[in-house]
Amino acid sequence: LFIQFVVSIAYASDPDALQDLCVAFPSSSVKMNGFACKEEANVTEADFFFAGLANPGVINNATGSVVTAANTSNPPHTHPRATEILFVLEGELDVGFITTANKLISKTVKEGEVFVFPKALVHFQKNNGDKPAAVISAFDSQLPGTFSIVAVLFNSTPSVPDDVLTHAFQIDTQDVDKIKNSLS
Amino acid sequence: LFIQFVVSIAYASDPDALQDLCVAFPSSSVKMNGFACKEEANVTEADFFFAGLANPGVINNATGSVVTAANTSNPPHTHPRATEILFVLEGELDVGFITTANKLISKTVKEGEVFVFPKALVHFQKNNGDKPAAVISAFDSQLPGTFSIVAVLFNSTPSVPDDVLTHAFQIDTQDVDKIKNSLS
Amino acid sequence: LFIQFVVSIAYASDPDALQDLCVAFPSSSVKMNGFACKEEANVTEADFFFAGLANPGVINNATGSVVTAANTSNPPHTHPRATEILFVLEGELDVGFITTANKLISKTVKEGEVFVFPKALVHFQKNNGDKPAAVISAFDSQLPGTFSIVAVLFNSTPSVPDDVLTHAFQIDTQDVDKIKNSLS
Amino acid sequence: LFIQFVVSIAYASDPDALQDLCVAFPSSSVKMNGFACKEEANVTEADFFFAGLANPGVINNATGSVVTAANTSNPPHTHPRATEILFVLEGELDVGFITTANKLISKTVKEGEVFVFPKALVHFQKNNGDKPAAVISAFDSQLPGTFSIVAVLFNSTPSVPDDVLTHAFQIDTQDVDKIKNSLS
Amino acid sequence: LFIQFVVSIAYASDPDALQDLCVAFPSSSVKMNGFACKEEANVTEADFFFAGLANPGVINNATGSVVTAANTSNPPHTHPRATEILFVLEGELDVGFITTANKLISKTVKEGEVFVFPKALVHFQKNNGDKPAAVISAFDSQLPGTFSIVAVLFNSTPSVPDDVLTHAFQIDTQDVDKIKNSLS
Amino acid sequence: LFIQFVVSIAYASDPDALQDLCVAFPSSSVKMNGFACKEEANVTEADFFFAGLANPGVINNATGSVVTAANTSNPPHTHPRATEILFVLEGELDVGFITTANKLISKTVKEGEVFVFPKALVHFQKNNGDKPAAVISAFDSQLPGTFSIVAVLFNSTPSVPDDVLTHAFQIDTQDVDKIKNSLS
Repeated sequence: LFIQFVVSIAYASDPDALQDLCVAFPSSSVKMNGFACKEEANVTEADFFFAGLANPGVINNATGSVVTAANTSNPPHTHPRATEILFVLEGELDVGFITTANKLISKTVKEGEVFVFPKALVHFQKNNGDKPAAVISAFDSQLPGTFSIVAVLFNSTPSVPDDVLTHAFQIDTQDVDKIKNSLS
Repeated sequence: LFIQFVVSIAYASDPDALQDLCVAFPSSSVKMNGFACKEEANVTEADFFFAGLANPGVINNATGSVVTAANTSNPPHTHPRATEILFVLEGELDVGFITTANKLISKTVKEGEVFVFPKALVHFQKNNGDKPAAVISAFDSQLPGTFSIVAVLFNSTPSVPDDVLTHAFQIDTQDVDKIKNSLS
Repeated sequence: LFIQFVVSIAYASDPDALQDLCVAFPSSSVKMNGFACKEEANVTEADFFFAGLANPGVINNATGSVVTAANTSNPPHTHPRATEILFVLEGELDVGFITTANKLISKTVKEGEVFVFPKALVHFQKNNGDKPAAVISAFDSQLPGTFSIVAVLFNSTPSVPDDVLTHAFQIDTQDVDKIKNSLS
Repeated sequence: LFIQFVVSIAYASDPDALQDLCVAFPSSSVKMNGFACKEEANVTEADFFFAGLANPGVINNATGSVVTAANTSNPPHTHPRATEILFVLEGELDVGFITTANKLISKTVKEGEVFVFPKALVHFQKNNGDKPAAVISAFDSQLPGTFSIVAVLFNSTPSVPDDVLTHAFQIDTQDVDKIKNSLS
Repeated sequence: LFIQFVVSIAYASDPDALQDLCVAFPSSSVKMNGFACKEEANVTEADFFFAGLANPGVINNATGSVVTAANTSNPPHTHPRATEILFVLEGELDVGFITTANKLISKTVKEGEVFVFPKALVHFQKNNGDKPAAVISAFDSQLPGTFSIVAVLFNSTPSVPDDVLTHAFQIDTQDVDKIKNSLS
Repeated sequence: LFIQFVVSIAYASDPDALQDLCVAFPSSSVKMNGFACKEEANVTEADFFFAGLANPGVINNATGSVVTAANTSNPPHTHPRATEILFVLEGELDVGFITTANKLISKTVKEGEVFVFPKALVHFQKNNGDKPAAVISAFDSQLPGTFSIVAVLFNSTPSVPDDVLTHAFQIDTQDVDKIKNSLS
């Protein structure tokens, strides 16, 4: 089992908070850069609190927590607007990110250890052990965003043109279709 | 026992990284706003890694991790340049912060739960249980800074004038001396 | 007499104005990070103007100007989101702030002199003279925020737990109550 | 007499200080965006202090304070990187700024009053009274920059080509020369 | 002929986008610092596209494209909130800007060449050739703002007082009137 | 032929210039977040100038300009720290980017037209025509960074583990090796 609790800091606080608290109010009718804030009278301690591991029932919530079977991986992806800090709570993970100079920086991270993935760089986590791993991820943005490298290329709507993919990966259309089918 | 591992994100990355990586190089001879960066050739995976709980020997390191006996507290303090995210790994803590409208927002946070303390606001953590609590704190700044409310007022060098303190707390000079003595 | 005119720059302009003018419109129904802006058609020269000392009747306005009797002080407080620049217009003040390294930086500031208190650090002003002092304070944020160290700890709603305070100040519950009573 | 004390906040603090103090160290051999910082051990209370009006001898210092005879003006100019707050200490001034919609916003500002000039907009101050005026100006940048509209056009090195000026002002070369001569 | 296509990047994206896309929605009823965003469901590829030179009919649109006869100039002006990058598509231009140290930095820029004008500094472009010049300008702000130096001084509403202008340019009231008349 | 001139704005100007000019000085011995600045005395008009298309000999310079044969593509890639504005000077291109909601936004962009790729999102350009295309790209960062999706995954040093790739793309090790070989 591979459990990832994504603790997106759900406060409209980057860049720079201009008041004490701006708790995100995503359902505001007015769209702006980032979230609008809740009325301060409606702010409670629950807005600063995340039940996390204490409440395993919340797994698979909208923010993006992921449950994957053992000996599997969280495939290469990136967060265009946030640095990620990963805390391993149980088990161990092989993790890595690649710089714009195509340098892989990787590490096996064990229970109680921490690893940082710089903003917008491609990274992955893989549980190579034979027991479950549980992690907490924190981001320094209210809206980090996530895209899987494979999904944006092979599973978008509408599709990325086949010739872009065959040229990029130097594979043929059949190979492209195989990957597309395995993802849908 | 109350254990706090302070995971200061030691990267020169706020505001906004302008390159992939800027690993803090505090011993640079040139002083600037924030830290200078290590030469990229000297950057390794260790720079993104923190042994944390996996290596209890690093307790009491320079960054400010704290070990306190059970039934005690991390007294009121603030981080002038960072929001803090607290993860409870073991035990439970009563925590709270106070807004500029003098409103206390508090919560009992248990194992696996998370709480957020907004930037520059006064907050505290107290272990009211009868067993140890261990937490990890993450900050969104390379140099969050910390000052204890009591220490800046009663234990600075040189001292804050007595009449400022007696007037502020409406206590007499003897009371001020008592607090000063208990701190040194 | 100790008069402090707080010139909060009431423009929604940090971080970075994106248009010529964004005069704060605090009564907007939509909450965002910082203030919404007034319709530009309703902006007049009055929005850039502050009567200040020329109109002593405005003392005690909502922004927070303070009138204190002579030989008294503006007790230790901090502005979580702004650097303060203080101009002494009349009289003289003993002022100081304390860094996160518990270093006190203090000075007697006289008529026509200026002093700066860095963002989010604890500072105080005390009129030790026998005549009134009048000052103007300017902030580099639309919403600097202010909290008195003593008030957030001893006068919040709900109260900070007694045991947090007795432990922090190393005083007993009776002492805590004495301070609480003197503040209410 | 028209006296202007320019209190440029000489701290390397925008955007966002990353440590308690970064006192500008302009003579550092390394050039960066903004100033390098003084070694913290060399920081004293004098770095936060400005003698201002208390010490009239410092008039005409390098930061740009200006002394102008009565019934004269501080001609149209702009600060490309700062909003200016002007406090009138003595006398009165007619002041104004012009928006990018060519709207003039102006006001007579008297002793004890305050006026704000938004970042990078053209503004002017004129003493129309028969007695001296003294003001303090504060900026929200360590390096506001100043250029007089007339000086950048008619007194630069090398010169702005005559045909650019004759076309812009719809005047002839003789008029351009007249203005150039009166400035040098 | 002198054609300038102003490609104002019409996205509410400075400082720092907090989500993937925030396409400017200038007609929002709520005013904020910068533009509100279009509902994401209404965003299409047209929002990222500018027909530019391919569609000469759009000249003189609201964003500010300019058509000037040959042997003329785009007079001294500034953009208070943006750096400008100029690409010469046809013909050649003499361009320049002046620093706050009154230093003119100028260059003849030919077809296929690029020049940069730093944020908020006064600059000009002049077509000294005998054939048309066409350029594209890009800005790093959603709302760069533009003011002509001459227009803000001689063509504002209400007018800048005559004595401010006569004093600044060292010309007489008749000269001021002559310039005002030639502009209206 | 597919020609791309990359006009990286080589000024140390984000976030927010604190002085008039900070021309990047990459060879400074001190590493900081972004580039150090050239001594202002050494700044000339050449620092603001880019010969671009006027000087086809500079193709393939260090900044990253690309020459590709006709009917080929600039494969899926991203710039972690910059929005890109693309100007088509000759020919036409099929371009697109994919949001974090896996939505493809694409367009055929012709001579004289402009397209924008938001910061850190995956995008591609493909010349489907039978004649060359030439473009200019501008970025809003001094150091946009670029990584090809395929290259970071299949051509890093050291290599991304095979099992991460086979799992992500749902292909076997042979397929991974095929792609790796075609790239080296």
